[in-house]
Amino acid sequence: MTVAFTLTEQGLRDLAEGAAVLGTGGGGDPHIGRLLVQQQLRAGREVRVIGVDELPGDALVVPSAMMGAPTVFIEKLPSGRGNIAALRALEARLGRAAAATMPTESGGLNSMIPLLLGAQLGLPVVDADGMGRAFPELQMETWNVYGVPGSPMAIASDHGDHCVIDTGQDNLLMERRARAMTVEMGGAAYICDYPMDAATVRRTSIPGTLTLAMKIGAALRRARQDHADPFERLTGALKDTIYSHGLVLFAGKVVDVERRTVAGFARGQVTLEGDAGRMTLTFQNEHLVARHGGRVAAIVPDLICTLNSETGAPVTTESLAYGQRLTVFAISTPALMRTPEALACFGPSAFGLPDPYVPVERLPLSAV
Amino acid sequence: MTVAFTLTEQGLRDLAEGAAVLGTGGGGDPHIGRLLVQQQLRAGREVRVIGVDELPGDALVVPSAMMGAPTVFIEKLPSGRGNIAALRALEARLGRAAAATMPTESGGLNSMIPLLLGAQLGLPVVDADGMGRAFPELQMETWNVYGVPGSPMAIASDHGDHCVIDTGQDNLLMERRARAMTVEMGGAAYICDYPMDAATVRRTSIPGTLTLAMKIGAALRRARQDHADPFERLTGALKDTIYSHGLVLFAGKVVDVERRTVAGFARGQVTLEGDAGRMTLTFQNEHLVARHGGRVAAIVPDLICTLNSETGAPVTTESLAYGQRLTVFAISTPALMRTPEALACFGPSAFGLPDPYVPVERLPLSAV
Repeated sequence: MTVAFTLTEQGLRDLAEGAAVLGTGGGGDPHIGRLLVQQQLRAGREVRVIGVDELPGDALVVPSAMMGAPTVFIEKLPSGRGNIAALRALEARLGRAAAATMPTESGGLNSMIPLLLGAQLGLPVVDADGMGRAFPELQMETWNVYGVPGSPMAIASDHGDHCVIDTGQDNLLMERRARAMTVEMGGAAYICDYPMDAATVRRTSIPGTLTLAMKIGAALRRARQDHADPFERLTGALKDTIYSHGLVLFAGKVVDVERRTVAGFARGQVTLEGDAGRMTLTFQNEHLVARHGGRVAAIVPDLICTLNSETGAPVTTESLAYGQRLTVFAISTPALMRTPEALACFGPSAFGLPDPYVPVERLPLSAV
Repeated sequence: MTVAFTLTEQGLRDLAEGAAVLGTGGGGDPHIGRLLVQQQLRAGREVRVIGVDELPGDALVVPSAMMGAPTVFIEKLPSGRGNIAALRALEARLGRAAAATMPTESGGLNSMIPLLLGAQLGLPVVDADGMGRAFPELQMETWNVYGVPGSPMAIASDHGDHCVIDTGQDNLLMERRARAMTVEMGGAAYICDYPMDAATVRRTSIPGTLTLAMKIGAALRRARQDHADPFERLTGALKDTIYSHGLVLFAGKVVDVERRTVAGFARGQVTLEGDAGRMTLTFQNEHLVARHGGRVAAIVPDLICTLNSETGAPVTTESLAYGQRLTVFAISTPALMRTPEALACFGPSAFGLPDPYVPVERLPLSAV
């Protein structure tokens, strides 16, 4: 996957929109994150994206992300100190400098944070991540599934004070400790976790998710320019990738949204009404399951995206509102995310859903 | 202060009881802590106590303590892993091995924790601490008052998972971050904070508090053996120390206890009735102020101790109960704890009390 390139402003805009599609309803709004990276580019700094095979096998890669509520950033712009503080604290703990950073997930905000760090420090950003979409918790990583310890991990507030957490092999415990510290730090914090060598990145990550996000964003942009159907273009953009299937499940109007904050997550469901009846989506930050006439139409870890029916623009679960005309678009996950070990970590049962996992391309609505 | 000696079982019992007196109503019950150290002694391990002048000036001293609710230990005996994990995590962060440990405060439980660590690892324990009594929060240390950063500090659960917190010079922020992690770790955790060299220990600590606690405990024990007045003996034991004044303020029966848990602290007040009328003590874990006929009889940081009227045994604020016959015994704090900087950190205003600080030996009841 040799992809080394320097990000342009147009590329950044495409990437931000495509990452929000891969965020599958969660992952935060990309707006603020994109502006922060854009500010870096306009100040003359560069974001260099590299493929997973462009580093020596023993090079240290340190993923970076934001943890907590992205909404905090809308109320108070980040200073840009926290992500650097988290990286430096983890480097100090490891006694080594990072050769590159990398996203932990694909999502509107968390695809931006490593780009920001890369621009600030001149650090390359690896074109891969550990979720291949957005998930709500730190242990829901292919890295965890395939044996990489998340510890030691660093967490920093926007003021730069920080904390290095070490829970050994227990990545679920790491999630709990870090979640508590995030709340203490004001509800949002910067993290660097799952430090690993490039050989391990290659073995355990979903490759190419930054370039995929750019491709998705560019397809939506060109569809608008061409007055073409954005969903056909999306399906086309995904076809020859490891995500292979992209398909419209349903189109309709939002007739009901039920949302509450439980244990730090946005949980709820949204109901759409359209020509084909009703579809209900259940979410926990991200969409978890789509039901149509009581039958499962798509289920986690496959991606269920709510997109504006006219423009294809992604709508996150926190912005769902009565009357919106949305298209529910499903994307099949790569094989690495569908193994029994992967499903145990972030399949339906990990979210307390009673339904078994069935690949979206084999479910009834996919034939529509 | 050359005091090097090896602790005997009798010395340990005296020390535990005397430390609970210096705990001034808080600092945790010494029972469990004493048993843990006793177990080490019976297994053939040693606790070596040394004076602050017995280390080279650049030797690294790492204080150790428990943070949170001592009651957790009564329900689940500590494994002895957490305190070692905290020390090792901090040593790793500093890149240096500790030459000695030290108590952070004088109190039933926290005078025991460094003795336990010293026995487990063969590490000497410095005869000094940073509070000269018990206080509820990590920034209430003479070390903080005299410019020592508490960071980096390590915090570990009883399972051994841990976290290194760094808030730079901000020791109050460190308290907040560590408090949140303590709650996350189950309400009780082990900490190592304020790492410093021996020269700094000498400049900023209250010296001799372990030997003082032993002296107090021995005085109470001998008073019982001799059927003598324990309070006269206590006054005698304190006379030639930096705590100089020890005096009975009041004796009576508990007629009212009001106690509630607010923000993780035991807050409340207890009223005693006796020949001299009524005395009310207000506490936040530790006793903060004693009032008699509406006038202040003793106030923080001077020590206000509730002792069994017959035996002189200390009674902590969580064990206060209706009908107990108690003697309120006040102890003057050393000069290092009465400077304006010290009073700003742990004087009446730091606890939201409206009363000014007046040294206990200059207050009306002291003449009684």
